[in-house]
Amino acid sequence: MSFSMSQASLPALQIGLDALSAVLDKAAAFAAAKKIEPAVLLNSRLSPDMFALARQVQIATDLAKNGSARLAGVEPPRYEDNETTIDQLKARLAKTAAYLKTLDPKQIDASGDRQITFPLGPTNKGHMKGDDYLNHFMLPNFYFHLTAHTAVRPRRHSPSRFTSR
Amino acid sequence: MSFSMSQASLPALQIGLDALSAVLDKAAAFAAAKKIEPAVLLNSRLSPDMFALARQVQIATDLAKNGSARLAGVEPPRYEDNETTIDQLKARLAKTAAYLKTLDPKQIDASGDRQITFPLGPTNKGHMKGDDYLNHFMLPNFYFHLTAHTAVRPRRHSPSRFTSR
Repeated sequence: MSFSMSQASLPALQIGLDALSAVLDKAAAFAAAKKIEPAVLLNSRLSPDMFALARQVQIATDLAKNGSARLAGVEPPRYEDNETTIDQLKARLAKTAAYLKTLDPKQIDASGDRQITFPLGPTNKGHMKGDDYLNHFMLPNFYFHLTAHTAVRPRRHSPSRFTSR
Repeated sequence: MSFSMSQASLPALQIGLDALSAVLDKAAAFAAAKKIEPAVLLNSRLSPDMFALARQVQIATDLAKNGSARLAGVEPPRYEDNETTIDQLKARLAKTAAYLKTLDPKQIDASGDRQITFPLGPTNKGHMKGDDYLNHFMLPNFYFHLTAHTAVRPRRHSPSRFTSR
């Protein structure tokens, strides 16, 4: 059996987006139980120099849709980054998961040797071969931004207590 | 060009282990600058129900060595989990990176359809095909435990400020 780039990306991204949506459900339940505004959670940061939860969701979804689209060689949809509620962020996650299903896995599989160009900060561009871009940019960054949430309250969803080595 | 399981695992794990070692250097420098015991950082947690930094390093290295060994079909070395200093944790990271180099990439590449059995908690066992184990257990959990550090002080190393979508 061959191992493919589409297999290493699309289902993993899908699972991550779904997990993040479930974390947002926990956040909504937590806010309701504690009688706090959900916006308080969406604006929470692990530290002052890290992004707030809402921004983390925006970045995670962008890494999923833009990264996959770049591998597939197509133009990703642009989102406006104007979500201010949990429901809106969940809709963004669902929209992103639906978009991933529109991509052709064969195009992603064929991108290993193709050079991918992507933004690095506001002005710089990064250039990597497709396989390196997937292994060393898309996945590590996607998982980073996912985790930057699960460590935000409510953490009942934190995988750490289930992790075995 | 073919995309392989060894390529999707070994170099990514290596980069992660090296990054974590660099984070520990930052921790040592931070502790020295602030005149605090490094053990304070090693015992820091993002929250009371998460593991402390030292344990996160132990788990990340175990995911790297045990996961890769399971894919390669060999028995991984056992570590004693007795590290109490930054230098000892850095040695564990270096030892793990060196171990990864001893594995045969071809054996990992051939494990996609082989059933992998791994511990899930103290008594349960998980069973997944090799490719699913890599995509949906090893990598997400490895990156989770890496990130559970970078959010610990010192966070100058946090990737978030460099991340582009």
